[in-house]
Amino acid sequence: MGSTIVEKIFSRKCGSDIKAGEVVMAPIDGAMIHDITGPLAIRKFYEMGGKQVFDPKSVIMLFDHQIPADSLEAAENHVFMRKFAAEQGIHNYDINEGVCHQVVLEKGRAAPGEIVVGADSHTCMYGAVGAFATGIGSTDMGFALKFGALYFKVPETVRAEISGKFQKRVGAKDLILSIAADIGADGATYQAIEFTGKTISKMDMAGRMTCCNMAIEMGAKAGIVPPDKVTWEYMKGRRKITPFALASDDDAKFAEKRTYNVADLEPQVAVPHNVDQGIPVGKVEGTHIDQVFIGSCTNGRYEDLVEAAEVLGKKKFDPKVRVLVIPASRDEYLKALEAGLVERFVRAGALVEAPCCGPCMGGSFGLIAAGEVSLATSNRNFRGRQGSTEGKVYLCSPATAAASAIKGEITDPREV
Amino acid sequence: MGSTIVEKIFSRKCGSDIKAGEVVMAPIDGAMIHDITGPLAIRKFYEMGGKQVFDPKSVIMLFDHQIPADSLEAAENHVFMRKFAAEQGIHNYDINEGVCHQVVLEKGRAAPGEIVVGADSHTCMYGAVGAFATGIGSTDMGFALKFGALYFKVPETVRAEISGKFQKRVGAKDLILSIAADIGADGATYQAIEFTGKTISKMDMAGRMTCCNMAIEMGAKAGIVPPDKVTWEYMKGRRKITPFALASDDDAKFAEKRTYNVADLEPQVAVPHNVDQGIPVGKVEGTHIDQVFIGSCTNGRYEDLVEAAEVLGKKKFDPKVRVLVIPASRDEYLKALEAGLVERFVRAGALVEAPCCGPCMGGSFGLIAAGEVSLATSNRNFRGRQGSTEGKVYLCSPATAAASAIKGEITDPREV
Repeated sequence: MGSTIVEKIFSRKCGSDIKAGEVVMAPIDGAMIHDITGPLAIRKFYEMGGKQVFDPKSVIMLFDHQIPADSLEAAENHVFMRKFAAEQGIHNYDINEGVCHQVVLEKGRAAPGEIVVGADSHTCMYGAVGAFATGIGSTDMGFALKFGALYFKVPETVRAEISGKFQKRVGAKDLILSIAADIGADGATYQAIEFTGKTISKMDMAGRMTCCNMAIEMGAKAGIVPPDKVTWEYMKGRRKITPFALASDDDAKFAEKRTYNVADLEPQVAVPHNVDQGIPVGKVEGTHIDQVFIGSCTNGRYEDLVEAAEVLGKKKFDPKVRVLVIPASRDEYLKALEAGLVERFVRAGALVEAPCCGPCMGGSFGLIAAGEVSLATSNRNFRGRQGSTEGKVYLCSPATAAASAIKGEITDPREV
Repeated sequence: MGSTIVEKIFSRKCGSDIKAGEVVMAPIDGAMIHDITGPLAIRKFYEMGGKQVFDPKSVIMLFDHQIPADSLEAAENHVFMRKFAAEQGIHNYDINEGVCHQVVLEKGRAAPGEIVVGADSHTCMYGAVGAFATGIGSTDMGFALKFGALYFKVPETVRAEISGKFQKRVGAKDLILSIAADIGADGATYQAIEFTGKTISKMDMAGRMTCCNMAIEMGAKAGIVPPDKVTWEYMKGRRKITPFALASDDDAKFAEKRTYNVADLEPQVAVPHNVDQGIPVGKVEGTHIDQVFIGSCTNGRYEDLVEAAEVLGKKKFDPKVRVLVIPASRDEYLKALEAGLVERFVRAGALVEAPCCGPCMGGSFGLIAAGEVSLATSNRNFRGRQGSTEGKVYLCSPATAAASAIKGEITDPREV
């Protein structure tokens, strides 16, 4: 019997033939901490007797959730983390780099076949480059920082095979929202979701990141796309690594196989208050919105901004809607800037902010009041996620967000 | 005996010959409220039995201090204010327009000879166009919103006559910091400061705004520049108004006359923790800095960003310094964007944020931790103003801010 891609990654790393269900102590290739989870992880590291992290070059520190510092506590946390980075020789991506997950991938800090952990649930995004990547808690991170290894129960894999060609203005976000609705919020708990099929092969890295990013929204331990030409092309200039074959064997044991055809897929909107409440946009068209957020690790890339800008054209956003555009990283920001997208968004009435987590974080950046509605390209619409527990958050693609911001209500992007 | 420009403004508005020291009920031409002071002003208006504001077209509402909403309270305040604006027929400049004082002037909502009040201490900035403008409390604003008039004790005037040509990389901010150091934080309490002389005549509107903005830092009720060609040119397209003569008579009674020559003026830095602690930059050169803020109503205009960019050139900011660039308004942002300044700042390592008050507000945007040092182009360096009471804030010009951000320590911009 063959192996899944996840079993192969763990087998390579552990040097023996590992199957799903086994509990292993696996070496890790990278550990990511950010400004919210980092301070506790560092304290745990010290509590465990940590002196020096296992490998400073494999530890990634980023500030993105509370930047620029939104409270004295945040400012003090930043100081604490910078001090740790300096003492340990860790490269610290400070407040000007962008959202952690995007920066990790852009800087080549995750690669095909690697095991990367991050103290953030959307760490699973790095599966877009064929890494096994998963979010862990601060205590586990303290351990990982000290030992460069972690216990894992190797997850079973759900194989999602995607075929068909997207309609215009339908894309990766609509796909993953529809898959989340199909699988359910706890339908893949502690499993890995492998995205395969012709549609994935043709999908750009931005779309793959969107899909893998949201694997956690089905309870999955990881999302992963087997590395292919697109992947290796993306790795060029980011990491010196010789391409190698890494894919599930056809005779591997999958927990489940699901097939999806996107040809008839309509733009999706996940309605409050759960991510798996995705329905075709037509069912909620006309819903009043107060704020639109285009950004986050899920959909804050250049390709997402292009998608929004194409819908926008030379139109204006409804002045009654507050539109926040926040590129996911400095690189994405600069690409958008050079392409004239920043100017177009600002002229249309949006605020374009420096890269950060923005309202997705629900901290101190673009909160909604009781009774208000946010439409966001981010990954979670839980009650209170973007402000008041009496507010509502809907999730959608950048195209749907832009179309809706223009009309002032939830709108099918194919109609704008 | 002649009259001061302030006496003339009150005389015109009240229809009788008014002299400093008299207490008058004067009609007002404009009333500005923003997201921090507005809610209380509106409540006061209602408490006084207010039903309809005196003139919806003369009331200006802006959101700039807590945007995008940085707390549930802020989000609710915004909702409350939008509702008031809609009910009253007031035009509401929402979160995407910029800092209140800048927007008021850009939109022509203050003009020569007018009396404008604002529920914010730096309302005195509108004196740059020859208006009598002053900051008032929320109770006074409630009254003003209802009656369109307010009691004033007409202030005496301190005439500051400025001559000489600025050295390269020395300008309006250095001048006003040196004047504040000379006059002192309470040296012009309840007086108006009139800025005149050849240096002012040659100064652009941006520089005049910087000077008038900081009149309050000497306790002044208002700062004012007599309208001239530069003023009337600025008013074109902003307000239909026929130029008229408005200046103090030479034989007017001034509280005091002070003369300044800028020829030898060095770049100034106001050291913690008071604005009147301005000293030549050389005396604090080499001081470690953690954060640099280029922005605010005082120095967030296109001209300020050009000044910073000229010092920056193609250099990079010190990566150990957090550099926040926040244009004062959407118009200023777009001018900077078109001129390539946004790109230059971001490439150099800065965060360029959407227009707002930023760290100047000391709320939830770019706070400093205990022991940290901020160097800012804003207007106040009071203890705790930008975060921890154990932090320090130094004030300077955009040129000095940029030079220091490059070097990572307070630096004379003439040496970069």
